[in-house]
Amino acid sequence: MNVNGTPTRTLWPARTGRAVEIIDQTALPHALRTLRLSTLEDAAHAIRSMQVRGAPLIGATAAYGVALALAARADDAALAAALATLAATRPTAVNLHWALARMQVALAPRPPAERADLAWREAAAIADEDAAQCRHIGEHGLALLRPLAERRGRLDVMTHCNAGWLATVDHGTALAPVYAAFEAGIDVHVWVSETRPRNQGLLTAWELKQHGVPHTLIADNAAGLLLARGGANAIDAVIVGADRIAANGDVANKVGTYLKALAARESGVPFYVAAPRSTVDFACASGTAIPIEERAGDELRVVHGCDAALAPVQVRQIPADEAVANPAFDVTPARLVSALITERGLCAASADGLLGLYPEARSEMPAQAHRENARA
Amino acid sequence: MNVNGTPTRTLWPARTGRAVEIIDQTALPHALRTLRLSTLEDAAHAIRSMQVRGAPLIGATAAYGVALALAARADDAALAAALATLAATRPTAVNLHWALARMQVALAPRPPAERADLAWREAAAIADEDAAQCRHIGEHGLALLRPLAERRGRLDVMTHCNAGWLATVDHGTALAPVYAAFEAGIDVHVWVSETRPRNQGLLTAWELKQHGVPHTLIADNAAGLLLARGGANAIDAVIVGADRIAANGDVANKVGTYLKALAARESGVPFYVAAPRSTVDFACASGTAIPIEERAGDELRVVHGCDAALAPVQVRQIPADEAVANPAFDVTPARLVSALITERGLCAASADGLLGLYPEARSEMPAQAHRENARA
Repeated sequence: MNVNGTPTRTLWPARTGRAVEIIDQTALPHALRTLRLSTLEDAAHAIRSMQVRGAPLIGATAAYGVALALAARADDAALAAALATLAATRPTAVNLHWALARMQVALAPRPPAERADLAWREAAAIADEDAAQCRHIGEHGLALLRPLAERRGRLDVMTHCNAGWLATVDHGTALAPVYAAFEAGIDVHVWVSETRPRNQGLLTAWELKQHGVPHTLIADNAAGLLLARGGANAIDAVIVGADRIAANGDVANKVGTYLKALAARESGVPFYVAAPRSTVDFACASGTAIPIEERAGDELRVVHGCDAALAPVQVRQIPADEAVANPAFDVTPARLVSALITERGLCAASADGLLGLYPEARSEMPAQAHRENARA
Repeated sequence: MNVNGTPTRTLWPARTGRAVEIIDQTALPHALRTLRLSTLEDAAHAIRSMQVRGAPLIGATAAYGVALALAARADDAALAAALATLAATRPTAVNLHWALARMQVALAPRPPAERADLAWREAAAIADEDAAQCRHIGEHGLALLRPLAERRGRLDVMTHCNAGWLATVDHGTALAPVYAAFEAGIDVHVWVSETRPRNQGLLTAWELKQHGVPHTLIADNAAGLLLARGGANAIDAVIVGADRIAANGDVANKVGTYLKALAARESGVPFYVAAPRSTVDFACASGTAIPIEERAGDELRVVHGCDAALAPVQVRQIPADEAVANPAFDVTPARLVSALITERGLCAASADGLLGLYPEARSEMPAQAHRENARA
């Protein structure tokens, strides 16, 4: 999508040398800075420190991380070490493991001498496919949004965290339908939750502003009130992304998603989850099996921003000796999800719904996933 | 309750002169600072700028504000002007209007020469009664919590915002039962939501720490996940305060309360609202009639904290030109409230429940309040 009027991706091959460049998302929204990743450790650090974040972008960055590792050394031990290092960076995002498994399947059978070039091409394919999939998610989502917009002559969407193009290679997941609606001339406005503790909502606001899409930032706490309002201020739909979707349709996403899903259901507002195939963990029977990453307490204690001269600065808002709990994700039960929006189309958040779109995944799915739906 | 081991109130008459002193809550949790209020404008500013906050404390401060005004001039025009100035400071808190109405009833019929002393005594009575009422809320709440604690051998309570002693003259509303449980020797632990955008949860953490009550701070977004957890980590009850309770039991409280109520119901966790009589607006038929204060966007855009040397500092986390919505309260429908905890005991969050405890308020209550409950 556009940055200062120029179409931009979140990561791209460097013009010179075997390296990729990324937008450093820890510097946004106050500064636009790019970083060059030249080594496995650069890529692992970028994922771990959230210079790149968002499940699809983590997957693409991990794939390039394998390619960067193999450019240095491509024997079996180096491949295994690269996969292990990258797999350990973030526990919840399933795209990470999906991308690493795909790299392993492509690379392990080939002679080491061929691996570096092949890994580079495979990582590029993962990135290009991600952008294409997100564009398709946008098109399928637009079909859902168009009738809502026609009903009122405008469209108000609420989202959580950042599942825009910054979370993917391009277009985004949750925001892909919003961008598609905007491009189709719909009068769309987005309610953006700041998404404490890391404030990824500010990334959402930044990218919407760069592309010219009207939006309003709110505290996470305000989502319930806004969803309960009807009339001229009504919200037509909530659309979020996902870090992992279980085979029964349960959705792990940024902490706070579940509260929005509850409030949406209470007010009869549809709640959609937009994600590509690579976010679905068909081997995971239900949300209770998804590990929830507990992140450092200082994410809550220390707030990052800028001073009056726009220089980066941080403040301690919680004393260092206060006990803090900081789970990064929560699980929204499938029963609260109105539909999944994928690159292949829409489906119910259920084992049957997912298998209808992805029949080839049947062998991966444990029988328990069906039982989980039957129980819900 | 205790500060550094010394029993302390949030406001008290100054030792010298016609003035009151308060704890400046905008300096907490990083610094404990007291302020002297000597004039009507001092009191109005303290309420407006949230140097004092919390519905009961706002009421007591407003009462003293009238007394400070009348110490300077006590004619009818001065009384009317003082009441009008104070009434305009915060639109949602009903205790403010309750306290001002009580001052007016006590003062208006009396000759101006008597008003200053009488106002001072009446304000002191309001403050003392508030402390006593909160102590009673604690005792009635303890009766609810004791069986929950006996079930597990410990007690985990979640709260929102600050409805502790800092929000009242002493003891608190939502935290009064927690303090009572702590004093009764129950192994109690409190989950404290930071309560963006103004982070009043940090006040809750500060006062719990001063009194020695174990607690953990969380992002507001984490409340749903924590309430959905069972087993050893289960939360036994949510207790919040209120800024205004409508005659049908609907509760206006700090924005984000409604999301916790939804999550509590979803997980079968009881959701209690603790408040004195002065928070109940019997003339207000239902929550839809309660005005929701929209506060300045910079509360969201700029975060206050301290630097490494504990000096106060602020950072801009949202650019000044980003559109922001900042509603300060939301309304939790009575159907989500397990019980109200008042100074007279427990009751259902309904017109019948409230009239059972406060039969003398029947004449104030519109017939619509009963119809609202019948409809819900």
